[in-house]
Amino acid sequence: MKNFKMAIIGVGGRGEGLYRVALKMRKYVQFVAVCDTDDQRLEFIAKEMEDDGRARPALYHDYKACIDEAKPDVILVATAWEAHLKITTYAMEKGIAVACEVGGAYSLESLWELVRCYERTKTPIIMMENCCYGRIEMLALNMKRLGLLGTIVHCEGGYKHDLRSMAKNLKHYRIWEYLHRNCENYPTHEIGPIAKLLDINCGNRFVSLVSVGSSAHGLEEYVEKHDLEAFKGKRFCQSDVVTTVLKCANGETVTIALDTTLPRYYSRGFVVHGTKGLITEENRSVYLEEEFPEEMWEWQEQYNNIEKYYEKYDHKRWQGYKPGKEGHGGMDYLVFNAFFEALDAGKEMPIDVYDMATWMAITVLSEQSLATGQPVAFPDFTDGKWVLRENKFEL
Amino acid sequence: MKNFKMAIIGVGGRGEGLYRVALKMRKYVQFVAVCDTDDQRLEFIAKEMEDDGRARPALYHDYKACIDEAKPDVILVATAWEAHLKITTYAMEKGIAVACEVGGAYSLESLWELVRCYERTKTPIIMMENCCYGRIEMLALNMKRLGLLGTIVHCEGGYKHDLRSMAKNLKHYRIWEYLHRNCENYPTHEIGPIAKLLDINCGNRFVSLVSVGSSAHGLEEYVEKHDLEAFKGKRFCQSDVVTTVLKCANGETVTIALDTTLPRYYSRGFVVHGTKGLITEENRSVYLEEEFPEEMWEWQEQYNNIEKYYEKYDHKRWQGYKPGKEGHGGMDYLVFNAFFEALDAGKEMPIDVYDMATWMAITVLSEQSLATGQPVAFPDFTDGKWVLRENKFEL
Repeated sequence: MKNFKMAIIGVGGRGEGLYRVALKMRKYVQFVAVCDTDDQRLEFIAKEMEDDGRARPALYHDYKACIDEAKPDVILVATAWEAHLKITTYAMEKGIAVACEVGGAYSLESLWELVRCYERTKTPIIMMENCCYGRIEMLALNMKRLGLLGTIVHCEGGYKHDLRSMAKNLKHYRIWEYLHRNCENYPTHEIGPIAKLLDINCGNRFVSLVSVGSSAHGLEEYVEKHDLEAFKGKRFCQSDVVTTVLKCANGETVTIALDTTLPRYYSRGFVVHGTKGLITEENRSVYLEEEFPEEMWEWQEQYNNIEKYYEKYDHKRWQGYKPGKEGHGGMDYLVFNAFFEALDAGKEMPIDVYDMATWMAITVLSEQSLATGQPVAFPDFTDGKWVLRENKFEL
Repeated sequence: MKNFKMAIIGVGGRGEGLYRVALKMRKYVQFVAVCDTDDQRLEFIAKEMEDDGRARPALYHDYKACIDEAKPDVILVATAWEAHLKITTYAMEKGIAVACEVGGAYSLESLWELVRCYERTKTPIIMMENCCYGRIEMLALNMKRLGLLGTIVHCEGGYKHDLRSMAKNLKHYRIWEYLHRNCENYPTHEIGPIAKLLDINCGNRFVSLVSVGSSAHGLEEYVEKHDLEAFKGKRFCQSDVVTTVLKCANGETVTIALDTTLPRYYSRGFVVHGTKGLITEENRSVYLEEEFPEEMWEWQEQYNNIEKYYEKYDHKRWQGYKPGKEGHGGMDYLVFNAFFEALDAGKEMPIDVYDMATWMAITVLSEQSLATGQPVAFPDFTDGKWVLRENKFEL
C-alpha cells in the first residue's frame, strides 16, 4: 500500500482516539499536520507523535491553512459536529480525500452541497461510521445475506449512552447542543449498519420519518445534584429520549432512539427482525425459527447465545480478528482500514457520500418533525440512482 | 365475601382459561350460565363444570337471552374483540357487573358510549388486563412509587408474540382481523401497566400518538410454507410490526410495538426509564444509578439481576404469592381476585371505565394514524376529570 500524508483536524477526545487507531497503520500513514483551536491539545498530540519517534507535525489553528499549506493526501475530520461539512467540502474541492467523523447535520442544503461537491470532484470521502463494522452488526448483515433471517421487516437501534457528565466540561461543544436544540442528534451509530443491512440507497431508501421527544429532566436534575453553576436553573431543550420511526420504500420500518441524558448502561439496542429469525442485542441472542419449533414463552436461557452464532456466521472481517481494547472494541480499526484499502485501490468507499448525506439528514428531519409534530418526507440524495445501485458493502 | 352468580359469555380458549382461574374462587363464584355461538364449546364447558361437581349451567347462543334469563350478578366477557363493547354495555344497562377481557376498539364513538353508559348507570366494570398484575410491571410500579427510579421520562412495551398459527384455525376470529385491518390491534397488555405507572387519567393523560407500520410478509410466507389453502395467495393488511409512539401531558413518551406475525420468543418488551434508573424486561435487569457509579459499557453480567430486586421491592400483591403454572403465571388470578374484592367491597374498580376506553382507543387511533400517515390527538374520556383524579391503583 502506498504511503498517505494525513492531517488531523480536530484533536479532542475523538481525534486523539482515532490518532491512536491510525498508529496501527504506521506503515502507510504519515502525520504531516494537526489542526485545532486549542493550543494545549495541539501540543499534546504533537508531543505524542514525537514520543512515538515520528516527525513533529505542522500545527494549525485554521483548517484552511492546514489544508492549503500542509498539502496532505488525506484529512481526518474529528471536530465539533457543526464544522464537519464545511471542512469536508473545502478539502474535497481541493481534491484531498476525507475521512469524516460521525455526527448529524443542521440543514438539508448543506448535505445537498456535500453530494454535489462529490459528484463534481469525485474526491474520495468516507463517513467513519465505526458501528458498520461492529461485530453484531456485521453478523446480522452476514446472516441476512445468507438468507437465515428471511425477509427483513423491521429493525431497531439506538444511541443509548449516559453522557450527562458532559455538563462538567464547558469546553466540549456537545453540552451547548443539548441546551439549545431538540433532535435525534446522533443517529449514525445505529442507522449506519441498519441502512447497510436494508440496502438503503441501493434498491431501497428511507421515504419518511417521524420523531417524538420526551420531556427533558435528566440534565436538569444532574446539574442540580452536581452543583454545576454554569447550568443550574437552565432549561435544556433536548428531550431525554427521542424516538424516531423511519419507513423504507420496500416497506421495512426502523425505530431508533436517542437516549443520552438518563442514567443507564451503554447499548445500541440493535434489533433485526425477519420472517425467519430475530437478532436482539439487548440480551445478545439469536432466534432462528427452525431452531425453536415450539412456542418460546421464556427466553432467558438463551441470553448470550450469540457467541454460538459468531462462531458459525461471523462476517469475514471478524473471522480470526482479535481486537485490542482500544478503538471501541476493534470497530475503529476496521473502518479506518477499510477506508485506506479503498483509497489505495482507487475503489468506491464502503460508506459513501450518499450514505453520509442520508444518515446525517436524520438529525435535520427529526428536528423538523419534533418542531412541527408532523412526519416528514425523506429526500433522495441519489436523485433516483438508488433504484439501480447495488449494495457492495463488505460483500 | 358474598357469593356471585356468574355467566361466562364466550368460551373459546380465553373463556376456558379464565373459567379455570375462576375455579380458584369457588367459594364465592357460582357459574349459572354459559353463552357461545359454538355448541361444542358450550357442551365442553358444561361438562367440565359438572365433572367439577357443580350444577350444570344454563346454555345460551344469544348474550341478551343469557343476561335477561339467567340473571347473573356478573358476566365475564371473553368473546371476539368486536363483541366486547356491545355485550358490556348491554349488561351495564341492566345493572349487571362486567369483567371484560382485553382487546382493541373499532370506533371512538363506541368508547364514548361505554363511558357514558358507566356514568349513567354506575354499574361496576373492569377490564381484565392481567398484565397490570404482572410481577415485573408491579415491581416497576412499586419502585417508581418508592422514588427509586426518579422522574419517569420514557416507557416501552409491546405485544411480541408469534401468533401465526392462528392461520390454521379458520374458526378463530383473529385471523380475519389480520386479513382486513391494519392497526395496533392489541395494545392493552403493554399499555395497561404503563398507564398505571404514568398516572394516566389521574394527573396525566395521553395527548397524541403516531403509528408506523411495516410491510406484511410474515403470514403470507407462513401460509405458503404450511400450504394453508384458505389463505394462500391472499394479501394480509396487517403490518408485521406496528410501532406506536404516545406522548403524555406531563411530557413522557411511550413506545409500543405490535409484533405478532414473525417468528420470535414471547416478550412484552417492558422498559421504564427515569432520572435515577432503568428497568429492562428484555434482559431482566434493573439499573439504579446509585449502584453503578462507573460508566457501564458491558451489561451482560447483570442480565437476570431482577431477582434481587424482586426480593427487595416486590409489590405487596406478589410478596409471598406463589402462582401455579395456569393463568399466565398468576396474573389472571390476581386481576380476577382484585375484581371480586372491589365488587364485594363496593369500591372503585382498580381498572376502570376510563382506563378501558383509553387503552382500547389506541387501536382506533393507530388505525387512523396508519391510514393517514399523520399523528392523531388523543380524546380525553374523563372530560377533564383527569386533572384532579388520584391514582389509587394497588396502593
